[in-house]
Amino acid sequence: MSEFKPRDPDWETKARESFARQSAMASIGARLVVLRPGHCEIELPYRRDLCQQHGYLHAGYTTMIADTAAGYAAFSLMPPGSSVLTVEFKVNLMAPGAGGKFLARGHVLKPGKTVTIVEAEVIAEQGAARVTTAKMLATMFCLAGKADTPKE
Amino acid sequence: MSEFKPRDPDWETKARESFARQSAMASIGARLVVLRPGHCEIELPYRRDLCQQHGYLHAGYTTMIADTAAGYAAFSLMPPGSSVLTVEFKVNLMAPGAGGKFLARGHVLKPGKTVTIVEAEVIAEQGAARVTTAKMLATMFCLAGKADTPKE
Amino acid sequence: MSEFKPRDPDWETKARESFARQSAMASIGARLVVLRPGHCEIELPYRRDLCQQHGYLHAGYTTMIADTAAGYAAFSLMPPGSSVLTVEFKVNLMAPGAGGKFLARGHVLKPGKTVTIVEAEVIAEQGAARVTTAKMLATMFCLAGKADTPKE
Amino acid sequence: MSEFKPRDPDWETKARESFARQSAMASIGARLVVLRPGHCEIELPYRRDLCQQHGYLHAGYTTMIADTAAGYAAFSLMPPGSSVLTVEFKVNLMAPGAGGKFLARGHVLKPGKTVTIVEAEVIAEQGAARVTTAKMLATMFCLAGKADTPKE
Repeated sequence: MSEFKPRDPDWETKARESFARQSAMASIGARLVVLRPGHCEIELPYRRDLCQQHGYLHAGYTTMIADTAAGYAAFSLMPPGSSVLTVEFKVNLMAPGAGGKFLARGHVLKPGKTVTIVEAEVIAEQGAARVTTAKMLATMFCLAGKADTPKE
Repeated sequence: MSEFKPRDPDWETKARESFARQSAMASIGARLVVLRPGHCEIELPYRRDLCQQHGYLHAGYTTMIADTAAGYAAFSLMPPGSSVLTVEFKVNLMAPGAGGKFLARGHVLKPGKTVTIVEAEVIAEQGAARVTTAKMLATMFCLAGKADTPKE
Repeated sequence: MSEFKPRDPDWETKARESFARQSAMASIGARLVVLRPGHCEIELPYRRDLCQQHGYLHAGYTTMIADTAAGYAAFSLMPPGSSVLTVEFKVNLMAPGAGGKFLARGHVLKPGKTVTIVEAEVIAEQGAARVTTAKMLATMFCLAGKADTPKE
Repeated sequence: MSEFKPRDPDWETKARESFARQSAMASIGARLVVLRPGHCEIELPYRRDLCQQHGYLHAGYTTMIADTAAGYAAFSLMPPGSSVLTVEFKVNLMAPGAGGKFLARGHVLKPGKTVTIVEAEVIAEQGAARVTTAKMLATMFCLAGKADTPKE
């Protein structure tokens, strides 16, 4: 059960197909693991080639999966024939990106016709331990009349 | 000439060596192209595996090079034996990540003993055209007494 | 019961006295209504002289009470002899400031020795209705060795 | 000369009249001192009743004048029959609000049909000294088909 009602009966397929077109997600090994109306979770296993200078996951990747989870959380509530754009986000980094895998959870705070406010967090998992490494507050834009389909 | 005076005579070497330890930068093909006290520029050529669903550079990469440029701009002014951490950043995305290469420019607004405020922008280059694709306002933290050196 | 343990036995008195020294809060009629370790709530009744051009509460006041609630939520966990400073905040405005009174709730996400991350929200109350008008994500700084006492 | 061309010949009158309807600005003694297409400056003299606990200008007022300057900078470029709304802003506080008066300068970075990105700064003036106390990066929204006129 979700608190939100999608406006497009095809919401899940279009979001999953859009995610699958993100070469950035495939390149780093990120997977879309949970998708509900207004909610999206993306998982990224740690890899040694995704790190900053101390060997932790680079804040850019923390942000990338948070932004992507936030974007699809918003997109899941958008009407047919529209695309999602990130207007802006703010991220607080709360702990180093240390862990075996990272889970980004995006959740809509306020859906809107044009602008949707979303929050997201990233959780590092190391064995049984769970540490929140980042918190995001983001603004997503619904680009009406331009479906999120492959370029010809 | 720079408006800032570094507190560590070794500022340039330590920043370049730290950048070189960022596997994330090497993996995506990013290069540190300009480094001055309080200022850093990072260049990222477009690659098809770094994209979001519409074939543009993923906002996560735009953010990653902006954060990295902002971080080294701040780090260049930090005293010996310290490390730089990103506390938070906010990014406004102003245009799609369309271009042959992307230049992130980080510049210190206000250096501080503990907290340094930095702004950054990302410029997409396509032939002779230059488009600002993102603007960042970030807070960097100086972790004193912990040099930014490789883990043993 | 709180999830946080204060480091100063005098945490409540010092926070309430500090709030009482904020002329800005008194001038607009804001009151500190809830204070727990890591949590603070401030209430502001609507007044016609606190408005923007459409007669709603000005976003500056929404921000002011959110920032103040966030600041005292952080301050409540700081050690004796220190002061709190706001490093930065980001606010998403989610609904017009329409209501008879406004409640700002600040809650610590991650306390730290130097930097504390706090989130806050502002809720407009109109009769039985409750609408979230704003969400804030903020960074607070602990200025050690400088007590938050009146200037002589 | 401005780098921006207004879309409403009446841009200046409507912005000044809208500012004049902001009771919050009048209450605190803020004045609109500069208005050009895409640019707005607001001045606030220090008053003892606008302070935080250390006697400095409250960050809420710093934010309020920055937000207002940013809003009218954006509004000056909007078409006839529309209103401006603040979607979000992020503020870094860079120095205490110490000074005899404060000048907020808002400047459009990227105007858009629906969303306009604006930056603002606040400068404290004390005698001949000028200190930047805050920097803002904000997103403004153009509400089309709803003129910014007084409520009947």
